Amino acid sequence: MEIASEPTRVMVAVNESAIKGYPHPSISCKRAFEWTLEKIVRSNTSDFKILLFNVQVVDEDGFDEVDSIFTSPEDFRDMRESNKAKGLHLLEFFVKKCHEIGVGCEAWIKKGDPKDVICQEVRRVRPDLLVLGSRGLGRFQKVFVGTVSAFCVKHAECPVLTIKRNADETPNDPADD
Amino acid sequence: MEIASEPTRVMVAVNESAIKGYPHPSISCKRAFEWTLEKIVRSNTSDFKILLFNVQVVDEDGFDEVDSIFTSPEDFRDMRESNKAKGLHLLEFFVKKCHEIGVGCEAWIKKGDPKDVICQEVRRVRPDLLVLGSRGLGRFQKVFVGTVSAFCVKHAECPVLTIKRNADETPNDPADD
Repeated sequence: MEIASEPTRVMVAVNESAIKGYPHPSISCKRAFEWTLEKIVRSNTSDFKILLFNVQVVDEDGFDEVDSIFTSPEDFRDMRESNKAKGLHLLEFFVKKCHEIGVGCEAWIKKGDPKDVICQEVRRVRPDLLVLGSRGLGRFQKVFVGTVSAFCVKHAECPVLTIKRNADETPNDPADD
Repeated sequence: MEIASEPTRVMVAVNESAIKGYPHPSISCKRAFEWTLEKIVRSNTSDFKILLFNVQVVDEDGFDEVDSIFTSPEDFRDMRESNKAKGLHLLEFFVKKCHEIGVGCEAWIKKGDPKDVICQEVRRVRPDLLVLGSRGLGRFQKVFVGTVSAFCVKHAECPVLTIKRNADETPNDPADD
């Protein structure tokens, strides 16, 4: 067994809050990120590199567009750019925290179904570790909302760390985040 | 967010190899343990403490006793002591590795159903992190052999890190370990 000299590459998938929307991070991903810095990275910042990415869910039903009025092709471009800007603001929150404690990081945006995109990014980027926040839902709730973390624990081709929210952070509806 | 000064307490559940028996560690728990030292602890040994325990499965069918001949109460006591000695030899392997790299550790033995005992020990000891090796079984195999790691990801009251075996370490029968 060899102690690695390259930093341990920790991939953290982050998403927006379902309650507050962009640019606010979800309770579970914020908790997972902060726990990882506090308990794993600690003061050994040169030994770790944080790889952050936000999956933007492509809204097949077009609900996001219901309130928008499109009068020209530019409106669509503006909307796409507005979505991108929201993702960037979200990532900025995490990158800023990494900078504050002095740990190296990279951040990017992907579009698609979160569970598939996360497993694809693991195959592409080959991190040492994938960190995921979890809402800690019961079986009944999972039937309706699905769980990204359970899927990724099974299918991601690298070690997976799942971190549940603290009890005092859990919203009245546990499916919220 | 505060960088902790107390060491991060990492609980690692270890078991014997289903192929080789005691005192050999299973492929998955050995891999999980070594990965954790290499990628999480690294050279920051004073920042972590490893809490190791072995769950001895109580054999309800008494298969272990089939080849034994009991002629006195002492034989049963000897057998119990022999089982305990096997668990101690297993733990010795892990404690020795911790000593070699200079990370603090504690090790102990429990009896019972692994998935229940692991969740109980998390409630009792309150580690920062639970590390579990996983065989990475498919859905069909899980029906027959069950999976401790899937249960603990859901039910353990702390963050859980699951680590699958490398492809080149997987036996012909993936249920073996």
